[in-house]
Amino acid sequence: MAKIIESVPNISSADSAIVEEIAGVVRSTPGVTLLNTSSDASHNRSVITFVGDPAGVEEAAVSLAKVAARCIDLTHHTGEHPRMGAVDVVPFIPIREVSMDECVALSRRVGERIWAEAGIPVFLYEASASAPHRENLASIRKGQFEGMEQKVQQPEWEPDFGGRTIHPTAGVVAVGARAPLIAFNINLSTNDVSIADKIARVIRQSGGGLNCVKAMGVYLKERDTAQVSINMTNYCQTPLYRVVEFVRFEAARYGVSIVGTEIVGLVPMRALIDSAEYYLGIEQFDPETQVLEYRLS
Amino acid sequence: MAKIIESVPNISSADSAIVEEIAGVVRSTPGVTLLNTSSDASHNRSVITFVGDPAGVEEAAVSLAKVAARCIDLTHHTGEHPRMGAVDVVPFIPIREVSMDECVALSRRVGERIWAEAGIPVFLYEASASAPHRENLASIRKGQFEGMEQKVQQPEWEPDFGGRTIHPTAGVVAVGARAPLIAFNINLSTNDVSIADKIARVIRQSGGGLNCVKAMGVYLKERDTAQVSINMTNYCQTPLYRVVEFVRFEAARYGVSIVGTEIVGLVPMRALIDSAEYYLGIEQFDPETQVLEYRLS
Repeated sequence: MAKIIESVPNISSADSAIVEEIAGVVRSTPGVTLLNTSSDASHNRSVITFVGDPAGVEEAAVSLAKVAARCIDLTHHTGEHPRMGAVDVVPFIPIREVSMDECVALSRRVGERIWAEAGIPVFLYEASASAPHRENLASIRKGQFEGMEQKVQQPEWEPDFGGRTIHPTAGVVAVGARAPLIAFNINLSTNDVSIADKIARVIRQSGGGLNCVKAMGVYLKERDTAQVSINMTNYCQTPLYRVVEFVRFEAARYGVSIVGTEIVGLVPMRALIDSAEYYLGIEQFDPETQVLEYRLS
Repeated sequence: MAKIIESVPNISSADSAIVEEIAGVVRSTPGVTLLNTSSDASHNRSVITFVGDPAGVEEAAVSLAKVAARCIDLTHHTGEHPRMGAVDVVPFIPIREVSMDECVALSRRVGERIWAEAGIPVFLYEASASAPHRENLASIRKGQFEGMEQKVQQPEWEPDFGGRTIHPTAGVVAVGARAPLIAFNINLSTNDVSIADKIARVIRQSGGGLNCVKAMGVYLKERDTAQVSINMTNYCQTPLYRVVEFVRFEAARYGVSIVGTEIVGLVPMRALIDSAEYYLGIEQFDPETQVLEYRLS
């Protein structure tokens, strides 16, 4: 089997001409397949998803950063989502026959090249972080583009590549390796968002709940429904079924049930297989030898 | 993505030297990967599992039939499992980027060649059958090797290739295309096999239960447990979760519950993903665009 790495850069623009130019650069990189682009106008932000072999993914990520630096000017940028750079974050995710260490090494090469070739200073984050306080993207991004020139003067916030002068229009960028992330929402049989909020607070890691789970309550206007909106940062540590069952029994104390769930975007098959194994009660099951697709070359 | 077909020939021998010779022939066929061999001494029978591109699978199946015809003599064969040929049955299963029609066409080419090159008359069965009464393997095999010389004289039982003279030591063979089969067992919280039997009778298609489900009650000596032993011949028509929930509510009338389930051998990922989707309550989910592995080339 060939090595496959996924990358999901976020750029600070929802302009379709810019997104199309960046998509074209990714599409034309040998060894890389563009899977998806998704733009949010109110966030003024787009997510570009691609997969490929390590060398191809490296080239596509660096090329994408160069185009973003040329086309996107953060001095004129507004949008609801926090951001610090024209290309805001470049995650690398091991998919097949690739270790997290290989993705960390790739992120360092890409970080060096983004500084050398696009002139954007780089913070390494998540599994690639050079210190624990730099693992979390939100901590790095705090202060956003407008505060970054001041922030990088602090001793603990010098970028990993490029020194203390931010790019005048493209800011800085976070580059790093991380596990696949699953965006998973659970809709409740109530429109009372305070219930979704209370459930979110007890299931998420920061509230002492489940490891590798971020959650918040959201009101869905179009369905008049309260939703627990979840990011699962490591589905191997905390499987999907555990989140569903946890939400189910917490919701029960408010007389509320789960009416449906939603997976936004891509999900690795293993995350679904693990939940099937739990619910079907399969004993002594070994996905790597028994699931046909793992055996295909 | 490359086309992949699976084949699971059953041969009428558990002799390790013969199985090794046949495995070697499959292994050395270009474009084919041998996944598994499994021999049962009391059945005096082995199952050879391999996958590959259509041309490779064709070559491997014909080569395997030639070796089986040379090494296995049914005139001296005893075993618990019904059988009619040295190579008893050769199923072809569409796995990836291949239609059932392509597998039917492959089975016809292989059938012609097994007659031409190994001298074994061939019945086409399942999706490849030339008449409805020849779809079911058990109907074709009825009478077994010892009765086959008589049986092929009947107007409705002339083989599709090779005419009415069976191979003197290798008998006849069934060749055909079929959907993937899942061997799925459900263990009950009782050692009373009559309960497993009653459940099996109501869930199986022949008892008016679920489509594409075969089932029988079995007593597992080593666990002192009653088991519903199930063959699922089309998991797209009847998904795994439906069998589990059906058994669960039928078992409840005897005060019995499910203590665990078991998948024997290989299972396609889609069968597990469909059940995860059901139990997790995922709405508007499209595995072909949302499951990462479907998107990898």
